[in-house]
Amino acid sequence: MSSLKQSTKYIKVSSYEAAIGDVKSVLLLYSGGLDTSVMLKWILDEYKADVIALTLDLGQQHDDLEKVRKKALKFGAKKAIVLDAKDEFAEEFLAKGIKANASYQGDYHLSTPMGRAILAKKAVEVAKKEHVDAVAHGCTGKGNDQVRIEGYILTLEPKLKIIAPVREWNMDRNEEIAYAKKHKIPVPASVNFPYSVDDNMWGMTWEGGEIEYPHLIPPIEKFLTTYTLAKNAPEKEDYVKIQFEKGFPVELNGKKMKLSQLISILNSLAGKHGVGVVHLVEDRLVGLKSRGVYEMPAGHVIIKAHKALEQYVGTRTLNELKEQLDTKWAYLCYGALWYDPAMHAINAFNDFVNAKVTGEVTVKMYKGKADVVSMQSKNALAYTSFNTKEGYAFNVNASAGFIEVYSLQMKLASARGVA
Amino acid sequence: MSSLKQSTKYIKVSSYEAAIGDVKSVLLLYSGGLDTSVMLKWILDEYKADVIALTLDLGQQHDDLEKVRKKALKFGAKKAIVLDAKDEFAEEFLAKGIKANASYQGDYHLSTPMGRAILAKKAVEVAKKEHVDAVAHGCTGKGNDQVRIEGYILTLEPKLKIIAPVREWNMDRNEEIAYAKKHKIPVPASVNFPYSVDDNMWGMTWEGGEIEYPHLIPPIEKFLTTYTLAKNAPEKEDYVKIQFEKGFPVELNGKKMKLSQLISILNSLAGKHGVGVVHLVEDRLVGLKSRGVYEMPAGHVIIKAHKALEQYVGTRTLNELKEQLDTKWAYLCYGALWYDPAMHAINAFNDFVNAKVTGEVTVKMYKGKADVVSMQSKNALAYTSFNTKEGYAFNVNASAGFIEVYSLQMKLASARGVA
Amino acid sequence: MSSLKQSTKYIKVSSYEAAIGDVKSVLLLYSGGLDTSVMLKWILDEYKADVIALTLDLGQQHDDLEKVRKKALKFGAKKAIVLDAKDEFAEEFLAKGIKANASYQGDYHLSTPMGRAILAKKAVEVAKKEHVDAVAHGCTGKGNDQVRIEGYILTLEPKLKIIAPVREWNMDRNEEIAYAKKHKIPVPASVNFPYSVDDNMWGMTWEGGEIEYPHLIPPIEKFLTTYTLAKNAPEKEDYVKIQFEKGFPVELNGKKMKLSQLISILNSLAGKHGVGVVHLVEDRLVGLKSRGVYEMPAGHVIIKAHKALEQYVGTRTLNELKEQLDTKWAYLCYGALWYDPAMHAINAFNDFVNAKVTGEVTVKMYKGKADVVSMQSKNALAYTSFNTKEGYAFNVNASAGFIEVYSLQMKLASARGVA
Amino acid sequence: MSSLKQSTKYIKVSSYEAAIGDVKSVLLLYSGGLDTSVMLKWILDEYKADVIALTLDLGQQHDDLEKVRKKALKFGAKKAIVLDAKDEFAEEFLAKGIKANASYQGDYHLSTPMGRAILAKKAVEVAKKEHVDAVAHGCTGKGNDQVRIEGYILTLEPKLKIIAPVREWNMDRNEEIAYAKKHKIPVPASVNFPYSVDDNMWGMTWEGGEIEYPHLIPPIEKFLTTYTLAKNAPEKEDYVKIQFEKGFPVELNGKKMKLSQLISILNSLAGKHGVGVVHLVEDRLVGLKSRGVYEMPAGHVIIKAHKALEQYVGTRTLNELKEQLDTKWAYLCYGALWYDPAMHAINAFNDFVNAKVTGEVTVKMYKGKADVVSMQSKNALAYTSFNTKEGYAFNVNASAGFIEVYSLQMKLASARGVA
Repeated sequence: MSSLKQSTKYIKVSSYEAAIGDVKSVLLLYSGGLDTSVMLKWILDEYKADVIALTLDLGQQHDDLEKVRKKALKFGAKKAIVLDAKDEFAEEFLAKGIKANASYQGDYHLSTPMGRAILAKKAVEVAKKEHVDAVAHGCTGKGNDQVRIEGYILTLEPKLKIIAPVREWNMDRNEEIAYAKKHKIPVPASVNFPYSVDDNMWGMTWEGGEIEYPHLIPPIEKFLTTYTLAKNAPEKEDYVKIQFEKGFPVELNGKKMKLSQLISILNSLAGKHGVGVVHLVEDRLVGLKSRGVYEMPAGHVIIKAHKALEQYVGTRTLNELKEQLDTKWAYLCYGALWYDPAMHAINAFNDFVNAKVTGEVTVKMYKGKADVVSMQSKNALAYTSFNTKEGYAFNVNASAGFIEVYSLQMKLASARGVA
Repeated sequence: MSSLKQSTKYIKVSSYEAAIGDVKSVLLLYSGGLDTSVMLKWILDEYKADVIALTLDLGQQHDDLEKVRKKALKFGAKKAIVLDAKDEFAEEFLAKGIKANASYQGDYHLSTPMGRAILAKKAVEVAKKEHVDAVAHGCTGKGNDQVRIEGYILTLEPKLKIIAPVREWNMDRNEEIAYAKKHKIPVPASVNFPYSVDDNMWGMTWEGGEIEYPHLIPPIEKFLTTYTLAKNAPEKEDYVKIQFEKGFPVELNGKKMKLSQLISILNSLAGKHGVGVVHLVEDRLVGLKSRGVYEMPAGHVIIKAHKALEQYVGTRTLNELKEQLDTKWAYLCYGALWYDPAMHAINAFNDFVNAKVTGEVTVKMYKGKADVVSMQSKNALAYTSFNTKEGYAFNVNASAGFIEVYSLQMKLASARGVA
Repeated sequence: MSSLKQSTKYIKVSSYEAAIGDVKSVLLLYSGGLDTSVMLKWILDEYKADVIALTLDLGQQHDDLEKVRKKALKFGAKKAIVLDAKDEFAEEFLAKGIKANASYQGDYHLSTPMGRAILAKKAVEVAKKEHVDAVAHGCTGKGNDQVRIEGYILTLEPKLKIIAPVREWNMDRNEEIAYAKKHKIPVPASVNFPYSVDDNMWGMTWEGGEIEYPHLIPPIEKFLTTYTLAKNAPEKEDYVKIQFEKGFPVELNGKKMKLSQLISILNSLAGKHGVGVVHLVEDRLVGLKSRGVYEMPAGHVIIKAHKALEQYVGTRTLNELKEQLDTKWAYLCYGALWYDPAMHAINAFNDFVNAKVTGEVTVKMYKGKADVVSMQSKNALAYTSFNTKEGYAFNVNASAGFIEVYSLQMKLASARGVA
Repeated sequence: MSSLKQSTKYIKVSSYEAAIGDVKSVLLLYSGGLDTSVMLKWILDEYKADVIALTLDLGQQHDDLEKVRKKALKFGAKKAIVLDAKDEFAEEFLAKGIKANASYQGDYHLSTPMGRAILAKKAVEVAKKEHVDAVAHGCTGKGNDQVRIEGYILTLEPKLKIIAPVREWNMDRNEEIAYAKKHKIPVPASVNFPYSVDDNMWGMTWEGGEIEYPHLIPPIEKFLTTYTLAKNAPEKEDYVKIQFEKGFPVELNGKKMKLSQLISILNSLAGKHGVGVVHLVEDRLVGLKSRGVYEMPAGHVIIKAHKALEQYVGTRTLNELKEQLDTKWAYLCYGALWYDPAMHAINAFNDFVNAKVTGEVTVKMYKGKADVVSMQSKNALAYTSFNTKEGYAFNVNASAGFIEVYSLQMKLASARGVA
C-alpha cells in the first residue's frame, strides 16, 4: 500500500491543480528571483508547456523590472510582460486600505495582502488575453500568499488551473541550488544575506534570518533600506501636511498630485526620518506564527493621519463601530478574503463614512516616530465651530440629568451585588 | 413665569444633588488647586457644613501631598486626609487595564478614567467611615469626570449626596479669582501657563491653551515634563526587559518588584527616551471633541509589550476577538462604566486569556519610540517549539486542500456576480 | 433656598425647551387621545400660542383619522392636519428595517422606533412649512419616545423649540382627568381597560395593566386584536409566498404590489393565524426595564423570510458579520439614533449586501407560528447550482487538508494546557 | 504521470491519517447504522487491526443501545462499549450552551456540534484506556462533523491516528450496499425513507430527501417524531415553570432534578405541543449550504427562557455585548472550535454573567410555539423593586438633560450634512 505513503511525489489534492499533460501554456508570476527562475525552467521541462512571464510594477523600489523581463526571456519564456499597475494599485486597492485604516494585529498596514489582491486580478486579465490554461506562482506551502493567489485567481476565473511548484516539489535549498546550477540559472552570491523581501510602494516586508526567531532581536541595520533607520535620521523634525478629500489623500504639502505619486514622495520624506518601521509577530492564516519587519514610511503616516481625521468628523458611536470594523477588515484582508462579499460590504460602509473625511492633517516626523499634531476639517464635530455657526453653547445644566439617567442601570446592577 | 428662565441660580435636576440645609458634613475631593480651594470655602459658606478633604496618592509626580493636606486645613477643612492608594491602584485597577491593552481611540491608555474609578471607591470608603452626608468634587459640567465620579460614587453608595460646585455655580474665571482673593486663597501667578494636568503613575493628561484647538500645534516643550521630550533623549537606545506572569508585569530587567514600583522605575527609564507622548483628539462621553496631550512612558511600554506577548500565545481566532473586546473595554472604561457588569464580564474574559500570558518581552526605546524587538514564552503558539515537542512538522501537503475549502464560498459568491 | 427644592414647577434644564412667552405658534403631535387633547388646551392656556395639530397616517388600524382631525379643531386647534405617510414609511423607513432584519432583544421588530423617526421628519417638514416656533409632544419622562422625538426633531432642525407637557406638568391621572373635565374634554369611559397601544402598519405595541409587571401573565385575550389570537386561528395552515427584489418585498403570492399594500394584506393573512405576537421585557434607553406585548403579523413574517433568504445568498463570513451588525442596528434604532451617521453607514453596508437578496420565500403559518419552509434564489450559494453551472463537484479530497490546517492552532494551544 | 490523477485510491494528505500497516487496534465510533457497520468490516479487512466499538449514550431517543452493542460484536468487534455520558453531556456541555443561548444562524440550538465535542472527549479517554492507535469515524468528506471529530480528537491527543473510511473509500450508495450484502451486513429495508437523523437529548437533526433541496417543502409528517407535530398537539395550552440557578436550570414545575432528567421530561412536555421544530438552511463550515429540520423541544424552551431571564438581570450595555458574543459563540461551536481558547474565554465571560441569572420563568406552549409569559428574579434590574428597596423613584426631571447630551453628536453630524 505504498500509495498511502507521503513520499508520493505529486499528490493532487485540489481539483484545480494542473496535471502534467493538461496544460499547453502557463502564465508564470515572475519576480526575477531564484525560486521563480527555477520554476520557469522546471515548468518548461516537466509540463512541456509554453511559459509567459508576468511581472507587476506596483512601485517597488528594489527591482529593475526591465532586467527582470529580459531574464525571463533568457531562461526560456515565450513572452515576458512587465505591467505598470501603480495607479490602479493606489486608487483601487490602497485607497480601500486607507479608508479601513488598514492595520493587522498592531501596525502592519497590509502591503503584501493588498499587493496579492491586485496581482491575482491582473494575472487573470493577462491569462484571458493570452489564452493560457494555468497560472504558476512561487509561494511556499506554509504561507498566506498561496491562499490569496490561488483563492483570488479561481474566484475571478474558475476555469484556470494552478501550478504551485515550490509547494509541490519539496526541493530543499541545496537541491534547488543544484537544479539552478545545472540549468545555468545564476544563484545569488550573498549566502550571508538570509533576508528576503516583498516590496511594493505601500511597504516592504522583511523575513528570514534572525527575523524568523522571535526571541532574537533582528539586526535591522543589516537589511533595512538605509534611509529608514531612525539612527541615521536628521536631528531636526519635519512636518508634512496631507489633504484628504472623502478619505482619499489628494495633496501633499499643498501640492495636488495623484495618489501613487503622493505615496512615492512621502516614502522619501518619511523614510528619511525612519518612520514606519514595525516589528510584528503575526498569525498567518494557516495557523503559524511568523515575525516580519516592515518598512512602510508613507503607509504609516497616511494611516495615522487618516484615522485621526476620520475620528474627528465621526460621532463617538460611529467611531467605536468603525474601529471594530477596521479590525474585521484587517483580518479579512490579511486572511485572503479580498473578494468575499463581506469585504465589499465593509468597503461600502467605509465609503459612506469617508464621504465626510475631508480636511488637512499635519504630521510631525522625528527619529522614527510620526505624530498627528494638528488637523482642520469643515466637517469636524467640534463644538467650538458648532457654537460659532449655530450660535449656542454646550448646556452644562443638562449634565446632571444625563449622568443620572446614564448611570441608572449600573447603580441598579450594583445594588443587586457584584457576581 | 420667571421660574422657567435659565437664570434661576440653583437648579436641582438630579435627585441626588445635595440641597443646602440637607447636609451637615461633606467629603471634598481635594487636589490643592484653585478650584477645589475655592470650593472648600464656598461649601463652608453656603452649606454651613463641615468639610473633610480627601487627597489620593496614586503615584502622581507633580504634587507635594503633605503641602496639599496642610492647605486644606488652612482653608478651613475640619480634617484633611492623604491616602496612599498606589498599590491598590496598580494591582486592582491598572492590572485590569493592562490585561485589556487599555487604549482609547488610538494610544490613550486611560490613566484618568482608571484614576477616577479608584478615587470614587476610596471616597465612598472614607465617606462611610467619616459618616459624611455628601461628596463634593470639582469637575466641570462639560467633561467626563463628573459622569465617572458621580456615577461611581452613587453606584457604590446610593445614599450619598453629591455637590458639584464648579458645574453649578457658573462663575467664570474672573469671578472665581475675585472670590479667591476675597477669601485669601492664593491664585497661581502663572497666568501665562494655561495648561492643566491630571497626574497619576499611569500617565499625565495635559489640556488647555493651544491644546484645546486641534488646528494648532501644541507647544509641548512648554509643559511636558522635560525628560519626556524626545528632543532631549540620549543618542543611544536602551533596551528594557519586562517579565509577565499571567498578564501581570512582575519583573523589570530581571528584578522582581511590585507593580507600582515597576511602573515608577519604568516611568524614569522610558521617560528619559521621550517614550509615550501622545496627541489625541478624542470623543468625550458627553459629546464634545477634545484634544489632550498625554505623557505615559511606563504605560505605553507595558501596553505594547503586553499586547505583543498576548498575541503570541493566543490563537488567531482569539486574537481577533480579543482586539474587538479591547476596543469595547476602552470605550466602557472611558465611558464611565467601570462598575457596570459588562465591564466585569470582559474582565473575566481577560483573566482567562491572560492565564497564559507568561513570558519575557524586550522593548527598545529610542527618541520617543518604543518597539517590541524580542519575546520568549513557553506558551507561545510557535510551530518551532511545537515541532520540537510533538515531533512533527507543518504538513505542506495539507495546504492545497485547505485553500480549496477555505475559498469555496468566495468563489461561489463571485460566480453570482458582485453587487 | 426653596429654589433648590424639586417642587419647583417648571424647571428648564434643556436649552431647547420653549419658555412661556417665547413661542407664538406650536405644532402639536396629536393622537386624539386624552393626553394630547389635554395638552392642546393646556398649551392654549399657558403659552397663549396658536396650535396646529398634526396626525400621521402610518397605516394604523385602530384610528379613525378624520375623527381625530375634527377633534383637534373642536378643542381649539387653529388647523389640524392628517398626513398620509404610509408609502414613505414603508419605502424609506421599514425597508431599511427589513434589510437590517430589525429585531431588538429578541423578536421586537421596532415598529414604534421606526414610526418615531418618520414622525419627527414629517413634523419638521410641516413645522417649517407652517412657520411654527415649537413642536409639542405627549411623551412621558420615563420612556424612549421623548428621546427619539426631541433628538430627531432637533437633529433635523436645531432652531425649533420643544414643549413636552406630560413630562413637565407632573399631573397625576386624577389631576389630568379633573383638568379634562373642567375643559370639557371627554374622558374615555373604559377605566377597566388599562392597556394602551401604539399602532402603525408594522406593528402594535401594548403596554399597561398586568403587562407592566413581568411576574404576571398578560391576559392577551383582553386586548389583542381578535384575529391575532392563536386560539382563534383556523385549523388549517396557510402558505404565503413573498418575492424579494434586492432585499425589498415586491410580490405577495405572485402579485406585484407596493410595500405598504403588501404589508397591509399580509397583516390580514398572517394575523388570521395569530402570527407575530411577542412578549418581551426590554431595556428602555433611559435605563428602565419594561414589558410590552407586540402584534406584528406582517413584520414577523417578512423579517423571518428576509433573514432566511439573505443568509442563503451570503457567505458564512458575511452572514456572521451581518448578524453582528443587525444587533447593533437594532440597538441604535431603538436607542434614538436613527439619524446618526453610524446608522447611515450600516444602512450602506446593508444596501450592498441586499443587492443580492432576490428570490422567493414560502412561509407556512399555523396557530401563531411562521416557518420558512422553502426558498429559491438565482443568487443562492448552493453548491448544487454551482455544480450545474460550473461543472465540477465539491472535492472531498480537499477536506483532510482543510481540517489539518484549520485545527492547527487549537491543537497548539491545547498542547500548552488549558488555562 | 498517473500519480497526478485523482483516481488514486488512497491519497494521504493529512499527516495524521492512519496508513495501513501502521495501526494494530482501532477505536470505532459506532452508531449501529449501515455506514459504521460496513466500516467495521472494512477496517478489519483492510487494516487487519483489532476494532473496539464505542457508542455514547447522550440521551438519544431512537436507539436501543444494547442492540447496537451486540451488533458490533456480531460484525467482529473485539470489544463493544456503550458509555452513559448523559450527565456529563448535560452538565459540562449543554450547560455551556445554555449560558450562551446557543443558536446558530437562527434557532438551531447546536445539538450535534455539542454532541461531537463530548464524543471526541470520551473517545480520547477510551482510546487511552484501551491503548488503541487510531480512531475511526463515519463522517463524509462534505460535512462539519469530520472537522469537529478529527480536530477535537487530535487536539485532546495528538498522538492518535485517524481513519475516515467514508471520506476515503469513495464508495457510492450501491457499492456500499453490495459490500454490505457480501459481508452479511443487513441493509435497512426502508429505501423509501431517505431521511437520516442525528439524535441526542438536546435535539434531533433531520437531513436527506426533500430536506436537501431548499426549494422543496420538507414533508415533516413523514419523519418527525409524531408528538412534535403541531397538528397533533392538544387544543389546550400548557404552562411550564423553569427555575434557573446561576444560569443553570435546576427545577421544573417546582421539582428539583438534575439537568439530564429535566431535559428528558421537558422533551415530553414540550414535544407534546410540537414545540422546537425548526427549518434552517445553514452554512456548513466547509462552505456548503445545507438544510436541516430540527426537533428540539426542551432545548428550544430552555434557550428562550434563559435568554429572557438573562436579559432581565443584565444592563442594556451588557445585553448588547452578550448578544454579540452569543453570535460569536454559536459560530465557533458550530465551526469545530469547541476546544479553542477563544471558546473557553467566552465561557468565562458567560459564567460571570450567569452568576446573576437566578429566577423563575414561565413558558406557555401551544401548537408548536413557546412564549415566555412571566418571570421573577431577585436580581432583575426592574425599577419597581429598586424603588421599593431604595426608596426613590425614577426622576423624570433628569430626562431632558439626558436627551440633550445624548443627542448632541447626532445633531452636530447632521448640521454638517448627511454624506
